Amino acid sequence: MSGSVGIVKTHYVDLFHEGTPLSLDSGASLEPVRVAYETYGQLNASRSNAILICHALSGNAHAAGKHHADDKKSGWWDSYIGPGKPFDTERYFIICSNNLAGCNGTTGPSSINPATGKPYGLRFPMITLADMVRVQKSLIDHLAIPRLMAVAGGSMGGMMALQWALDYPDCVASSVIIGSTLRLSAQNIAFNAVARQAIMMDPHFNNGDHYEGEKPKNGLALARMMAHITYLSEQGLHEKFGRRLQNRSTFSYGFEADFAIESYLHHQGSSFVDRFDANTYLYITKAMDYFDPFPDPETTARRLKPVQARFLVMSFDTDWRFDTSRSKEMVKILHWNEKNVSFQEISSPHGHDTFLIDTPIFRQSLASFLQRVYLEESGS
Amino acid sequence: MSGSVGIVKTHYVDLFHEGTPLSLDSGASLEPVRVAYETYGQLNASRSNAILICHALSGNAHAAGKHHADDKKSGWWDSYIGPGKPFDTERYFIICSNNLAGCNGTTGPSSINPATGKPYGLRFPMITLADMVRVQKSLIDHLAIPRLMAVAGGSMGGMMALQWALDYPDCVASSVIIGSTLRLSAQNIAFNAVARQAIMMDPHFNNGDHYEGEKPKNGLALARMMAHITYLSEQGLHEKFGRRLQNRSTFSYGFEADFAIESYLHHQGSSFVDRFDANTYLYITKAMDYFDPFPDPETTARRLKPVQARFLVMSFDTDWRFDTSRSKEMVKILHWNEKNVSFQEISSPHGHDTFLIDTPIFRQSLASFLQRVYLEESGS
Repeated sequence: MSGSVGIVKTHYVDLFHEGTPLSLDSGASLEPVRVAYETYGQLNASRSNAILICHALSGNAHAAGKHHADDKKSGWWDSYIGPGKPFDTERYFIICSNNLAGCNGTTGPSSINPATGKPYGLRFPMITLADMVRVQKSLIDHLAIPRLMAVAGGSMGGMMALQWALDYPDCVASSVIIGSTLRLSAQNIAFNAVARQAIMMDPHFNNGDHYEGEKPKNGLALARMMAHITYLSEQGLHEKFGRRLQNRSTFSYGFEADFAIESYLHHQGSSFVDRFDANTYLYITKAMDYFDPFPDPETTARRLKPVQARFLVMSFDTDWRFDTSRSKEMVKILHWNEKNVSFQEISSPHGHDTFLIDTPIFRQSLASFLQRVYLEESGS
Repeated sequence: MSGSVGIVKTHYVDLFHEGTPLSLDSGASLEPVRVAYETYGQLNASRSNAILICHALSGNAHAAGKHHADDKKSGWWDSYIGPGKPFDTERYFIICSNNLAGCNGTTGPSSINPATGKPYGLRFPMITLADMVRVQKSLIDHLAIPRLMAVAGGSMGGMMALQWALDYPDCVASSVIIGSTLRLSAQNIAFNAVARQAIMMDPHFNNGDHYEGEKPKNGLALARMMAHITYLSEQGLHEKFGRRLQNRSTFSYGFEADFAIESYLHHQGSSFVDRFDANTYLYITKAMDYFDPFPDPETTARRLKPVQARFLVMSFDTDWRFDTSRSKEMVKILHWNEKNVSFQEISSPHGHDTFLIDTPIFRQSLASFLQRVYLEESGS
């Protein structure tokens, strides 16, 4: 039986304050940094059962449960977090924090810049995934957790799980990297560039200062619609929508949405803008573009040398955003550098977004891996 | 040796005038319809060597040669049309016309509506690929050509080449369908829907009335940038751009274009808007969405029964917009309906756009097929 974590609340903590700013890869610094996070389950006496979950581009700290009993939806990874679920809250202590530059409680471009008393907008410094991980490490220190049993994430969250293993080798027992990649390809960067262009050409973008008055909703919706196509597989779209018409039996011969897929995408776009900040979209896509921890064999070897984490790498056979070959390359490099790595390709029609969807084989593999790490960590 | 067709000019003819309007699939009608076309080579005495070339979404009638000696670029299929080239102008008479609803000389939404004296804009009727083919048939009648030796095209041009064989079975000896499909998939429709949304959300779109004052350039550029990603293969983009930075050695940590692929896409977008009408983009993508000549086996059998054309179907192994499985499905259906069909998958790193790029194997296959048809038609 697997259940729900029930009603949860988001916590907030101010880090990097009182003259100890966060130093960023760009050379800039930032203070203070507020972090929004949630936890599920109980930290054990030896503080050895903590798992950090890293969310993807559009995620947030609310990974499981509900904030209010009448919430329609549970947290974004509720299928995988809870009693008896892979991230078993009867055994593990689960932490999920909103990423730096986010828009759901952690400091980002929509936060008030203490120097001006107004939202940062594009005055927010550019950040990298390593910066985002640095903030998470500060949160883990604040929670007095010396070592994470696992860091896990899908897509960008998987990149962060890798970054954790590289940057804090003594603090990560395992790294679970799902539907992810070592770096964005030219095609991935191209889609991000078009998404940013869509936002920045919106007449309400106002060079990032859109927190009063109209927001660049059309541009952000467009960016989301396009990105959403890349999250789903051709096959999945075919099975779900095909060429089915939307509430009509014949073509409109006009510019309404004739096909169900069109209506679906418009809905995806318009619902996204109510919960997401256009500037956060710009910063996070740029951070993803920059991610490239293994640019050459020498750097790779140097970075991997101290790494102790064991790795679980998983891919989905219909994911064309970060296809299986990306995961295989990651596995090869980890192998060649004598790391402990397991790899599994999961068959699913749902493409990149499979990691968000309840998928039995994926559940089982995740659960088994975590259980093994837990036993090893408990015995050590 | 293969050469150039030299300096060419575009011709114009008014069709469907004087009370004989073009009847459209939507039920609407249109008159007059001006058609812009070019021809290369000479029609032979028996009028049996004519080949019609159908252009794709963003093409036009200028398929080969130059309009002026100092033109920087030749026509869009100049690599394939000319003396000694596959569309050999020493042997064949080549015709290419701008499609209905186009923006390069043929009547479209930017044309003057005779009823109002102003550009049609969105008052232009919705058209289908069959309507576009109907206009081409009228042009061929005007040129007093009883039967086409071949109708050929890539992408949407390939769909039109199929439509020709279905709608005018007695007038088409062969149909050359390159990198094409029997219908757009949900994913294809999704990309078109996002492209149209980009155009229509541009503040200068003005519900299609943008022929005076500012044009919706940002929206059209965005649509083109996104579409362009789908025209190229992941592999091709990797080989050409990879993660190479654009005129810089380190990241900008700003929102400029850091990567070469970003600059390239911006250039593709901005150069497109100078030569293309945003409304044409709307109409033609919608016509493609609607195309579905074989919705079920009964309709397919009925439509194919009178078809005499032999078919050459070609696909490109890295084309993910209309991948090889689409061509294979087309071949299977043509086979099952006892049609004469040849199929070849061409290996190329250039994805969907391979048909526009000089590719030796593709050249040779095209040349051989046309030569065989020519000999058969001459002997018959």
